Amino acid sequence: MAFHVTDLIKKKRSGQSHSEDELRFLIDGYLANSIRDYHMAAWLMAVFFRGMAFEEMRVWARLMWQSGVSVARPVRSGFWVDKHSTGGVGDKTSLLLVPIVKAVSEKVWGKNAISIPMISGRGLGFSGGTLDKLDSVPGFSSDLSIEAAEKLMQTQGFFMLGQTKDLAPVDRLLYALRDVTATVECVPLIVSSILSKKFAENLDGLVFDVKLGAGAFMGNLGEARHLAQSLVAVAKSEGLHSVGVLSAMDEPLGWKVGNQLEVEECVDYLSGSRREAGLHEVTMELASQMLALGARGKLSVPECREQCESILQSDLPMKLFSQLFESQGGSVQQFQKRREALAKRPRVPVVAEGSGYLEWLDAQHIGRLVHALGGGRETKESSIDADVGVEIFKKIGDPVSEGEKIYEIVLSSDDARERIPNRGDGGIKISRTAIESTRWIKEIVR
Amino acid sequence: MAFHVTDLIKKKRSGQSHSEDELRFLIDGYLANSIRDYHMAAWLMAVFFRGMAFEEMRVWARLMWQSGVSVARPVRSGFWVDKHSTGGVGDKTSLLLVPIVKAVSEKVWGKNAISIPMISGRGLGFSGGTLDKLDSVPGFSSDLSIEAAEKLMQTQGFFMLGQTKDLAPVDRLLYALRDVTATVECVPLIVSSILSKKFAENLDGLVFDVKLGAGAFMGNLGEARHLAQSLVAVAKSEGLHSVGVLSAMDEPLGWKVGNQLEVEECVDYLSGSRREAGLHEVTMELASQMLALGARGKLSVPECREQCESILQSDLPMKLFSQLFESQGGSVQQFQKRREALAKRPRVPVVAEGSGYLEWLDAQHIGRLVHALGGGRETKESSIDADVGVEIFKKIGDPVSEGEKIYEIVLSSDDARERIPNRGDGGIKISRTAIESTRWIKEIVR
Repeated sequence: MAFHVTDLIKKKRSGQSHSEDELRFLIDGYLANSIRDYHMAAWLMAVFFRGMAFEEMRVWARLMWQSGVSVARPVRSGFWVDKHSTGGVGDKTSLLLVPIVKAVSEKVWGKNAISIPMISGRGLGFSGGTLDKLDSVPGFSSDLSIEAAEKLMQTQGFFMLGQTKDLAPVDRLLYALRDVTATVECVPLIVSSILSKKFAENLDGLVFDVKLGAGAFMGNLGEARHLAQSLVAVAKSEGLHSVGVLSAMDEPLGWKVGNQLEVEECVDYLSGSRREAGLHEVTMELASQMLALGARGKLSVPECREQCESILQSDLPMKLFSQLFESQGGSVQQFQKRREALAKRPRVPVVAEGSGYLEWLDAQHIGRLVHALGGGRETKESSIDADVGVEIFKKIGDPVSEGEKIYEIVLSSDDARERIPNRGDGGIKISRTAIESTRWIKEIVR
Repeated sequence: MAFHVTDLIKKKRSGQSHSEDELRFLIDGYLANSIRDYHMAAWLMAVFFRGMAFEEMRVWARLMWQSGVSVARPVRSGFWVDKHSTGGVGDKTSLLLVPIVKAVSEKVWGKNAISIPMISGRGLGFSGGTLDKLDSVPGFSSDLSIEAAEKLMQTQGFFMLGQTKDLAPVDRLLYALRDVTATVECVPLIVSSILSKKFAENLDGLVFDVKLGAGAFMGNLGEARHLAQSLVAVAKSEGLHSVGVLSAMDEPLGWKVGNQLEVEECVDYLSGSRREAGLHEVTMELASQMLALGARGKLSVPECREQCESILQSDLPMKLFSQLFESQGGSVQQFQKRREALAKRPRVPVVAEGSGYLEWLDAQHIGRLVHALGGGRETKESSIDADVGVEIFKKIGDPVSEGEKIYEIVLSSDDARERIPNRGDGGIKISRTAIESTRWIKEIVR
C-alpha cells in the first residue's frame, strides 16, 4: 500500500496510531532510501512526544525483526532462553549466566534441555558492553556468521555473538539515527529496538534486567517499571515466556569495572576465589529466573536458585566458561597469563577523606571515569583500551577509615594519569552514621 | 562557540530556550552542512512540540535574515512599506495595493514619500501565489537581480520580485525541509520564516494580512490572533512599524480565482468597471493601514481610507499598475489582447440545487478545484496552467434561485473536463432563510 511519508509524520505528530501497513511502508521505504533520514528523524521525534500504542510498538518490533534474518532452529532443540540488560556499570552477569544456567540445566535435565543463543552489543556512553569484555580474552571472536553460530547451538547449546548486519538491519540504521537526533530515551523505541534483535534469536524465554539508579538509563522506579512492563508485555505477545527484574545500579556491580578487569572478576567468581555479594545476588536472581522459565513449572524460582548455588560448588560452570571462549577461538589460559603480565599496571588510589560508612559510590562517575581513560567509546567506530578500569574495595554500607582506599584507578601506562577527570569528591560520600547496604533486587515484573 | 548538535536537539526537546550563540551555531552548521537535514528535522519537530520563547523566535528570524543579503537602501528614500498575507483563495490584493498606495502617497506627500519593495512567493497547496498571477502577464519577469530591483526602487519606488537565492538562504532550505517533515504548522517557525524575508526588504513598515477560515492556514480566531500578535511583536522588536489585519477566508475573495482570471479582475477593479464588495473592503483596509503607517500620525486610518476611495476615481492607480508590469518587461495591453482571445475557453457551470440564500461557498473547495485543474502546483518545481480557474457569480448572503449559476469552472481545453473533481455539493450550501454577507475584516492587531 502506498502512503505519503509526510502524511504519516503528521499522523504521528497529532498523536494517532499507525496501522501495520503504514509501519511496513515506513520500514520498507527507509531500507529502500525513498524515505530519507530527515523524514525518519522528524517521525522519531514525533514518536518521542506522542508515544506508540501497545499494538503499534509490538508490530514495529516485529517488522524491524523481520527486516533481517533469524537464527535457524532445529525441531526439538529444547528451551532457548536469553537475558537482556538495559546496561550498567560493572555489569558482567551475561558472562556468568551462560555457564551457570547451562551447567544447572545439564545437571538437572540433561544436555539439550536449555540452550542460550546470546547476541550482545558493544558499550556506548558510560555503560560497558558485553562484546568489549569478551574481546579482552586473547583470540576470542564474537564476529561469527549466523551459520557458524547455528552450528555452535547444535554442538554445545550456546554462543555469544555480536549483532551482525543481517540481524534487524533497520534497527541498526535507526539506532545510529536516534543516537544523533536525541531520540534515544523513548520507551516504545527502546522496547522495539531491544526486541527486534531478541526475536531474531528464536527464543522460548527471555529475562529482562532493567537497571535502575544513577548509573542506569532509567533514573527512577516508575520509569524502570514502565519499561520492564512494556518489554515483558511485547515479548509475551509474540509468544515468549518472559519476566523482568528491576535491579539496582547506584554503585557499580561487583569489585571491578573495565573490560579486562571484569573478565578477571568472572574467572574469580566462577573459580570460587572471590564473589562480591551484589554481583552474586544479581547473578543468582537472573540465573534462577532464566531456569524457572525453562522449567515450565517443574521447578520454582527458589528451587532453581538452590540449584544455582549448588552448581557453584562444582567445577562445571568454570569448565563451560572456558568452553564458551574456546569454541569461539579464545583461551582463558592465555587470558590468565596476560592477567599476570598486567598486574604491574600503574594504579591511582582514591581514599576516604573521613571516617564512617560508605554512603554513596556513584556508578555513573565510575563509568565516566573508565570511559575518559579510554575504556569506552565515543562513537560506534571508536577503538577502546580494554586494560583500563577501576578496582573497588568498599561497597555502600561498609565501614571506612580516613585515608583508606575506596577504589583504585587502573591505568595502562603512566602517561594516562593526565586523562583522569578532576572531580572533587570522586563520586564518594561518607556518612557518620551506619548505612544499609544496597538492596540489589528491587522488583520482579511478570 | 562550539556545541554538540545532539545536545541542542535534546535541549529543545526538553523545552528549554536556546541562546543566540546556540541558534547561530545551528544556522552556520546547517549552511556548512556539518549539521545535516536529519539533525534539523528532529530539531524542527522538537520546536513544533515545545515552541520558542519570544526572544528566541526574534533572534532566529534575525539570524535567518542575516544569512543572506538585503535590498540596499539609499539615505532619505522615504518610508518603505510592504504587506504580507498568510495566503488565501482569490486573494489578489498585492497587485492592487502597490498602485493604490503609491498613487495616494504621490498625490498627498509627493513622489518619494512611500516606496513598496514587494517580495512575494509562489502558490503551494490550494492557496494562490502572487508571482504565479504576475506571470500570466505576457513578458513580465519577477526574476530580477537584487541590483535591478534596487534600481527600480530609485526610479519608481516599487517592484514585485520573487525570493532570490541570496535572500535568507537558510529559510529556503528550512522551508523545503519543513514541507516534507510535517513541521509547517508551527507559529514560531512561520513567524521567523516570514520575517526573515521581510527584514531583507529593509522596511520601515509592514502590514500583515492574517487570513482566517476554511480557505486559510489558520482555521480559528484564537490561532490567527496568536499568529498576528507574534508577527507584529517580532516585527516591532526589530524597529518596524507594524499592524496585523485578521480577514475572512471562508468564501473566495472577489469574483475570480485562477492566475490569469485574477489579473483580469485587478484590471477591472482599477479601471472601475467592476468591484466586488469583499475584495474592495479588504483592499481598502490594507491600503489605508499601509498608508497610515507611512503617515506617522499625520493621517489617521479613516483619513487614509478616504484618500484611497478618492484616488480610485482617478486613472493614476491604473497607470501605475501598467507601469509596474512595464518596468519589469510586461505589457498590460498584451494581457488585454490575450484576455479577449481566451474569452472562448470552455466553461462548466455549477448551479443552485434549490432556492434561498447562499449560505456557504467553500474557499478551500474552490482552491482545490483550481489546483486539480492544473492551476496550482504539487511541488515547488511543478509547472502550472495559468489560464484555468473559477468565476463566481454569487457571494454569501446573495439570494439565489434553483438552477441559477453559482460559479463557472473555466478550463483551458475541453479535454480538461475529466480533471474536475467530483464533489456532490460543489462546496455550496443554500439556506431557506436570509443569511448575512461575510464580515471581511475581523480584527486589527497592533
